[in-house]
Amino acid sequence: MSLEYKNFDTLSSYRDLAAAGKQPRSLETMLDAKRVERYEVKTDLGTEYLAYNYAAKKVDENVLELLQSLADEAQLAEKYRTLTQGEVMNTGENRKVLHHLSRGEVSGPVTEDGKDLGAFYRNQQQRIATFTQKVHDGTITTPEGTRFDTVVQIGIGGSDLGPRALYLALEGYATPKMKARFISNVDPDDAAVVLQNINPQSSLFILVSKSGTTQETLTNEALVLGVLEKAGIQQPRKQMICVTSETSPLAKNSEYLDSFFIDDYIGGRFSSTSAVGGAVLSLAYGPEVFRDLLDGAHSADLAALDPSLQNNPAMLDALIGVFERNFMNLPSTAILPYSQALSRFPAHLQQADMESNGKQVNRFGKPVSYVTGPVIFGEPGTNGQHSFYQLLHQGTDIIPLQFIGFLKNQTGMDTTFEGSTSQQKLNANLVAQIAAFALGKDDDNANKHFPGERPSSLLYADKLTPRVLGALLAHFENKIMFQGFLWNLNSFDQEGVQLGKVLTKAVLGAGEIHPALQALAEKLGAR
Amino acid sequence: MSLEYKNFDTLSSYRDLAAAGKQPRSLETMLDAKRVERYEVKTDLGTEYLAYNYAAKKVDENVLELLQSLADEAQLAEKYRTLTQGEVMNTGENRKVLHHLSRGEVSGPVTEDGKDLGAFYRNQQQRIATFTQKVHDGTITTPEGTRFDTVVQIGIGGSDLGPRALYLALEGYATPKMKARFISNVDPDDAAVVLQNINPQSSLFILVSKSGTTQETLTNEALVLGVLEKAGIQQPRKQMICVTSETSPLAKNSEYLDSFFIDDYIGGRFSSTSAVGGAVLSLAYGPEVFRDLLDGAHSADLAALDPSLQNNPAMLDALIGVFERNFMNLPSTAILPYSQALSRFPAHLQQADMESNGKQVNRFGKPVSYVTGPVIFGEPGTNGQHSFYQLLHQGTDIIPLQFIGFLKNQTGMDTTFEGSTSQQKLNANLVAQIAAFALGKDDDNANKHFPGERPSSLLYADKLTPRVLGALLAHFENKIMFQGFLWNLNSFDQEGVQLGKVLTKAVLGAGEIHPALQALAEKLGAR
Repeated sequence: MSLEYKNFDTLSSYRDLAAAGKQPRSLETMLDAKRVERYEVKTDLGTEYLAYNYAAKKVDENVLELLQSLADEAQLAEKYRTLTQGEVMNTGENRKVLHHLSRGEVSGPVTEDGKDLGAFYRNQQQRIATFTQKVHDGTITTPEGTRFDTVVQIGIGGSDLGPRALYLALEGYATPKMKARFISNVDPDDAAVVLQNINPQSSLFILVSKSGTTQETLTNEALVLGVLEKAGIQQPRKQMICVTSETSPLAKNSEYLDSFFIDDYIGGRFSSTSAVGGAVLSLAYGPEVFRDLLDGAHSADLAALDPSLQNNPAMLDALIGVFERNFMNLPSTAILPYSQALSRFPAHLQQADMESNGKQVNRFGKPVSYVTGPVIFGEPGTNGQHSFYQLLHQGTDIIPLQFIGFLKNQTGMDTTFEGSTSQQKLNANLVAQIAAFALGKDDDNANKHFPGERPSSLLYADKLTPRVLGALLAHFENKIMFQGFLWNLNSFDQEGVQLGKVLTKAVLGAGEIHPALQALAEKLGAR
Repeated sequence: MSLEYKNFDTLSSYRDLAAAGKQPRSLETMLDAKRVERYEVKTDLGTEYLAYNYAAKKVDENVLELLQSLADEAQLAEKYRTLTQGEVMNTGENRKVLHHLSRGEVSGPVTEDGKDLGAFYRNQQQRIATFTQKVHDGTITTPEGTRFDTVVQIGIGGSDLGPRALYLALEGYATPKMKARFISNVDPDDAAVVLQNINPQSSLFILVSKSGTTQETLTNEALVLGVLEKAGIQQPRKQMICVTSETSPLAKNSEYLDSFFIDDYIGGRFSSTSAVGGAVLSLAYGPEVFRDLLDGAHSADLAALDPSLQNNPAMLDALIGVFERNFMNLPSTAILPYSQALSRFPAHLQQADMESNGKQVNRFGKPVSYVTGPVIFGEPGTNGQHSFYQLLHQGTDIIPLQFIGFLKNQTGMDTTFEGSTSQQKLNANLVAQIAAFALGKDDDNANKHFPGERPSSLLYADKLTPRVLGALLAHFENKIMFQGFLWNLNSFDQEGVQLGKVLTKAVLGAGEIHPALQALAEKLGAR
């Protein structure tokens, strides 16, 4: 089948969906127990599962059929298959898009110039696993022979948010073999506070920069080197490894303890399952835990191949999101995990989504005439209930919601208090919120009136294990990819970050700059 | 002067502003060095200052005049003065609103039944200071005689977000005398992971709940008590203090080591400067640091009395925000501190703002016909630049921005790398972003085109000290209050959080519940 890349609003189901979006059926009339059972897709992860329940979304059979037509017409499944076969999907930068391949082959091997690209990722994973085992068993130590007990990732953006979110997500699942800390911001206080709280003599640092030229990361390397030297460490770079591309200035520099590689086919925000996340997560939890995470992601990647929305939760989630964004005109989405372990998962998804689809030109560089990526924000529940949920319930705007929950907690520690466990209370709160948002409550006092009709979905699993975490990550990555296909965007570049870099360089340089910028720079002592 | 509470859209400047908001003047034509100098208000904090620069906001002299008329017509300054004099401004709950008084008297003493209410707050601060000194000097220890070296705050919402954000904000300013940790979520893994990383034998716990009945907090108390008992601690409540109202079940219970009090006149999200934040911050950094923070907040509170926008940064910020929200129709606002220390400050402001003004009825309980509180989100820069800024620069929606920056860093640690310090790089990035958002950049390649015209403001100071932090906090609290006055809301209640509580109780109880809720609850093992 030949693929066509058309603007979304030229597809024939667009108009029908626009009409349906103006008057979606009310949740009050639709939401019942049968719907809770039927409006659900489960992804099989071997002995585990990840379920996507959309009973509380404002879609009925008619809308779902239209969304299926839209998915078919936009050739979503075929585009995804083509991507996993190694087609150049990052058109602006003329690159393949291969983060799926870092977990496993979705559509067979991908080769380039006779080279098996999957073998490259597998090889790096193997190298990381071997290195990790040697660190854990004490074969690899500092030059002074001290065992490493802490790992500090130095990276920013995709080299920080995803790995950090995943590290925190597993802290209750397994006691880390090595504590992980993260330095990201060029603000020197970020590194200073991290360094105050670790022992530099027993810390292993991971420098993560694909290009090997990221300003923040190189600056923080310099700062850390200074602190290590001050602490009397003779060869500080022998406590550092690099994760970078093979052609970067950081690569294969024998001053460092070791290097692991990534390539241009995995963008920063999709790199958690490459060496970018692999090194720190393997060192923290062991390579087998990271392997389980990859397996979970791979299962979700396979599920995303199905052209039928009823069997493809990522695609369905994407379509419902587009229905809300473009046809119900709702400009933001909240991600609300009922799991403290996922405290930074919304921040990672904020990057993954907003950096991928926050675009106003299509993949051919032409302006689009419809809205694209929404604002993504979120915090864990129940915390958020005592915070911004007021606006979600009774504000003047409707914010679509994406809940995440688990039947069991990670640590196994719990207490029964007033007749229920903490985990039961957590989940009682979660389901109560879904009902409150959907159904609302009348009250003669308008201040106590809840309008309801606020749509939400629920991703849930038995427990937040590495496998489930991998599947969750892949679910959202694939959702974002499908939405990008629908909007006819290139979701894999990020030209919007360039101008700031250019102007920063100009501020730090000696040349003339815009007078207003000059005035601001002087105010803040930046030049 | 008698106060009138009118809906915003009935004021005479409303129509002119609506017209101006449709065609705001372009930043490209307006933004120059003179404007950077002129469009700034400085708040004097004694030896320090906090500046609000609005040169990159899409307001000109005409709009500013209209906003001044609106402020006058809405009687913003008078309403604020009345609030600080003890008028019942939380009308729904029939309560005064006195968080300002916890920092100092803005309009003289506030009395009730002959009682000086300011004296109550001062007395609690004094009691906390005395208690803190005894903990620090070892006069107060565990029953076993162990010195306390860690303080763990157990609270949620306003008892968590503000105190936590402020604690983190000062971690680089001063090495804590006691490490502080926070347990908030009813998810048992939250407490489990915190407890794994502290020594229970030397930890002091602060239970914070105004009502003394918060489900999450009491459940976490039970969980912590269990862990302490298992660790062989005989009288675990002698390692706990309470911060609660004098009438709560937690108050004056001699099983606890001590209790400190708050009252109903300070809402949770405004309670950081009461005993809710005072206990943990004083224990962590010393009472004099907390006192400096209060003094900074008080200075900002005094500045907010000025009826002239040109001298009142909080009021001006509020008005510009309303111009963007209601007249330019921009539904969200990003808060972007260029300071890693403020990593959780946006999450606190998300609560403060969205819980206060996410309302659809006015203070008389009548539906309003205009939009109110926006979605608030944010992360520190430069991190965000490598994340969601793509959408901010090139997305289809415009998001107003609120930058925060400091000339100097907190720790004093820095490094010169490639000709500039980290702090210079940080601030060069900050000002470069302001220019990039405002001015954009043309490019023949539409993918590299930056439309610009994206408005931002900048709050800045010399350094993030306790005093500046207090002023920043008060700036935003007062901004939110003024916006609430403009929208004619009661910004001080939160009825929107109630329905979830009721339904949670129903799920955990034995009675019949909505069939869809029952089905969801069974899925997640919540009943």
